[in-house]
Amino acid sequence: MTRLLLLSSSNVHGHGYLDHAAAELQDFLGPRRRVLFVPFALHDHAGYTEKVRERLAPLGLTVEQLLAGPEARAQVEAAEAVFVGGGNSFRLLADLYRLGLIEPLRARVVAGTPYIGSSAGTNLAGKTIGTTNDMPIVHPPSFVGLGLLPFNFNPHYLDPDPASTHKGETRDARILEFHELNPQPVLALREPTMLRREGDHLGLRGAAGARLFRRGQAAIELAPGSDLDELLRE
Amino acid sequence: MTRLLLLSSSNVHGHGYLDHAAAELQDFLGPRRRVLFVPFALHDHAGYTEKVRERLAPLGLTVEQLLAGPEARAQVEAAEAVFVGGGNSFRLLADLYRLGLIEPLRARVVAGTPYIGSSAGTNLAGKTIGTTNDMPIVHPPSFVGLGLLPFNFNPHYLDPDPASTHKGETRDARILEFHELNPQPVLALREPTMLRREGDHLGLRGAAGARLFRRGQAAIELAPGSDLDELLRE
Repeated sequence: MTRLLLLSSSNVHGHGYLDHAAAELQDFLGPRRRVLFVPFALHDHAGYTEKVRERLAPLGLTVEQLLAGPEARAQVEAAEAVFVGGGNSFRLLADLYRLGLIEPLRARVVAGTPYIGSSAGTNLAGKTIGTTNDMPIVHPPSFVGLGLLPFNFNPHYLDPDPASTHKGETRDARILEFHELNPQPVLALREPTMLRREGDHLGLRGAAGARLFRRGQAAIELAPGSDLDELLRE
Repeated sequence: MTRLLLLSSSNVHGHGYLDHAAAELQDFLGPRRRVLFVPFALHDHAGYTEKVRERLAPLGLTVEQLLAGPEARAQVEAAEAVFVGGGNSFRLLADLYRLGLIEPLRARVVAGTPYIGSSAGTNLAGKTIGTTNDMPIVHPPSFVGLGLLPFNFNPHYLDPDPASTHKGETRDARILEFHELNPQPVLALREPTMLRREGDHLGLRGAAGARLFRRGQAAIELAPGSDLDELLRE
């Protein structure tokens, strides 16, 4: 049974790092005490892991750093739970392809290992990273992600600002361009929003809601707590 | 002699399409009356070309659409001037690679054909598209652009907003991430800003200025009209 907890953001205005997600994270992990952390989306892997370690220790969780070397595959295969941190989605994906970890990670999660993702880690769980907000700082061999869900994400979603004088494309305009070339839906998560999958059940968590963009259709507002099971049958 | 006129944006708040650039564009093109338009960054090539045709007709300019087929190479080789329009930089680059047009286009411009770019067309002129704001809606075989300048661009540059409550990365933070993996400078152009190259001379145009990001250094503010010749010697 595939189990996912996907955060739009690890930081939310007015809260400390991961504070808004701590209770949900504890509920999601249940009795598990060891988390394999994937720090590849940021440059400083050890520093990033230490930050997560310090934050999760008070929750009774032990954090192991996934290493960018030959031992990584065995680490993935032994993982009790996986947390993929945010940062740059291109860098994260490029490292996972380079290390041959895409398939082992997918297999592990499909077999039931709980997967937590934040921002880039949430993008990774989707079909492709084609709706990331990140800059393409490195060229991965593909934009295809873990495909743990049959759609894409847009984390850190920002509603269009009718008062804006900026002429760069809005987030909505960019997603429309995505749909000119790609069929899958895009779930746009405002920052405090989380998505939880428990097998055949998919639900929104957090107070801010989300927007669902389907090709050729007007975007739909999804209220906090919405049941999204039907999205698993795309 | 390489001649470039690169716009951050074809639209600027309070102005019609290309209005802010019309006088500079006329001065840049001089006696040339025919422009080959590259519409690949948007989905509707014919519609996009028509929009540009209508806007440039009052300036006495004739617009030819670059076609996405086998005739494209001959069109590039016969061009009197080239205008690469804005849209999605990944789509633009993917089409140019697919059609084998990167080298012919670069050769033509290096040989002296004036090149006008806007937004994605400006990114294309740089070393890579690694600092685009666009979503990766299609996977090009490389992020390497025309390399008509030895640095990258960030068009539609937005200064960090100290009042923001949004926790997605700022533009500056994203450029910093770019420099963790790439050495070349990034010239960030606010929307009304243009860059003009005439051989060994490089200068900012427009009233809003720009910011220059060099790896490992604090960003530098560049005043309107700045002489940037030294950037050609990177």
